[in-house]
Amino acid sequence: MLTEEKVKQSLDGVLVPGLGRSLLQLNLVRSVTIADNRLNVTLASAALSSAVQDWLKAKVSDVTKKLPGVKEAEISFVEVRPKELNQIGQVVAVVSGKGGVGKSLVASLIALSLARQGQQVGILDADITGPSIPRMFGISDRPTGSETGILPVLSRSGIEIMSINLLLPHEDDAVIWRGPLIAKSIQQFWEEVLWGRLDCLLVDLPPGTADAPLTVMQSLPLSGVVIAFTPQDLATMVVRKAVKMTQMMHIPILGVVENMSYLSLPDSEKRIEIFGPSKGEEMAQAAGAPLLGQFPLDPELARLCDQGDIESYNSDALAAFAEAVATAMAIPVKKGG
Amino acid sequence: MLTEEKVKQSLDGVLVPGLGRSLLQLNLVRSVTIADNRLNVTLASAALSSAVQDWLKAKVSDVTKKLPGVKEAEISFVEVRPKELNQIGQVVAVVSGKGGVGKSLVASLIALSLARQGQQVGILDADITGPSIPRMFGISDRPTGSETGILPVLSRSGIEIMSINLLLPHEDDAVIWRGPLIAKSIQQFWEEVLWGRLDCLLVDLPPGTADAPLTVMQSLPLSGVVIAFTPQDLATMVVRKAVKMTQMMHIPILGVVENMSYLSLPDSEKRIEIFGPSKGEEMAQAAGAPLLGQFPLDPELARLCDQGDIESYNSDALAAFAEAVATAMAIPVKKGG
Repeated sequence: MLTEEKVKQSLDGVLVPGLGRSLLQLNLVRSVTIADNRLNVTLASAALSSAVQDWLKAKVSDVTKKLPGVKEAEISFVEVRPKELNQIGQVVAVVSGKGGVGKSLVASLIALSLARQGQQVGILDADITGPSIPRMFGISDRPTGSETGILPVLSRSGIEIMSINLLLPHEDDAVIWRGPLIAKSIQQFWEEVLWGRLDCLLVDLPPGTADAPLTVMQSLPLSGVVIAFTPQDLATMVVRKAVKMTQMMHIPILGVVENMSYLSLPDSEKRIEIFGPSKGEEMAQAAGAPLLGQFPLDPELARLCDQGDIESYNSDALAAFAEAVATAMAIPVKKGG
Repeated sequence: MLTEEKVKQSLDGVLVPGLGRSLLQLNLVRSVTIADNRLNVTLASAALSSAVQDWLKAKVSDVTKKLPGVKEAEISFVEVRPKELNQIGQVVAVVSGKGGVGKSLVASLIALSLARQGQQVGILDADITGPSIPRMFGISDRPTGSETGILPVLSRSGIEIMSINLLLPHEDDAVIWRGPLIAKSIQQFWEEVLWGRLDCLLVDLPPGTADAPLTVMQSLPLSGVVIAFTPQDLATMVVRKAVKMTQMMHIPILGVVENMSYLSLPDSEKRIEIFGPSKGEEMAQAAGAPLLGQFPLDPELARLCDQGDIESYNSDALAAFAEAVATAMAIPVKKGG
């Protein structure tokens, strides 16, 4: 017998052009009704251009007419804002007091770890004046959209990404905006991007404790933050500011991550602590949260980031990190996912 | 014969308590009149507490009465705002698009180079949410002041420093401010701090192209900017944004400085290019300005910065840098200064 469930299953095979995620993943199926072998499917039009809507109409009609028991299929669109369609399990911001401690790297590695465990993941690049996420993932596609919203861009391993750099004519154009405009664009990335259904959305914040972090902490429903730092005293001093800010905003700290812990010399077992001895345990204590990982200063990783190929990265440190992240976020670990 | 010049010479020996720079250096001597062996000295009271004013009155009276030809000395104070007293030769901002590229380090090394060449130098730490200058110079003294202004703090080698961190109860307190407040505090550091007479004031900007850099570029009379970067592609992409911003604001770029160019291995001649091959020439070309220096990732320098002892730093790279900076700023190099 024809059921709503079976219709939805068939719609899960219909990928939205220009993004590559299904109607179900994007939560675009608003209603399915069946009466006398007549099928009615209502889809949300959010962020879909009229050309994409036409294409989807024909495609959904084709697919559903092949289902046993369907004689006629009527596909219609209803306007719904992305904000009302987005269903996001956890929103996690990655913060640091000081710049250059590998905050974007940590956000990317968390996203990567979760995606490899079979989670649906997105990254909202809130570093409006210094975005580095698209470069690390090798993405330069311009996002598509309509008057009602914008579609994220999908990375090679299926991570949804939105960054101001994808919207600029040239990636090195400067965004010379004061706080209110920056805050507004972050809110747009949250409300007007069709993220759809995600297990986790990572938010890559700019360094410091000014407008952008404040906007994110005040207006996004954060499940928690992860704090990135390097062993340099100077950096840990400034990171303590970020810890204090987070605590003042009553947001849970899920964990801390140390970057540039050490340099492994090629052709030797020797490690050099370039920025001094590890501050991992000290910072974990200061933040009242677990140390999720310690990453070395790794020329290979730097090269992958520069080449837009971070998704090829594999290391023992990353494997251990992925487990720690899953535990901190209370996510069941899928082996070999 | 008693001349105004001789009186002023004697006042150059009177140091303002709590700062350690002379009345002349701070431009506090407003007028000196001599008539019938009676001397009148008018001093500006800007940023001086009443206790300091009393002390100076007595001290200046003592000193001038010892001059041949002075029978009576009357010392009075007049209220003048620091803004009207400050006489600053060049204002140079150090910028970067991305954080963590050693921007504060470059600002400090320029200041150090100029001071060693006998210049009077100050550093305005405009990185309000992530200040690192006081830590690098090992300064934690609280600045003193009055209702009309505030005195900077002097480093061991005589560099005037003002930073939000000197005004916070604890150095790791978070400054959770939106752009307008940050802009206001930078303007206060410019207008209400008694810098006095300086050859050069370095402004350490936060990363990015948002409120703080915009405020500095719009409201401070910048002679030019120096741009700091690391060889990582990602960093140079974001630095190009800073170059574009600077060009759009019609501010000359005095030069570019590469940090973390390479790591010199201890006990060997080998260099590791951790962040990839040098981008020095490429960035100099992009900025249309000379490459002023290339600094290695130096664990010894990182240690000195963490210990607040950056003023002890010496290296061949720094010596070459000092000459390049003097040339770029058209300053006569004093050998052994």
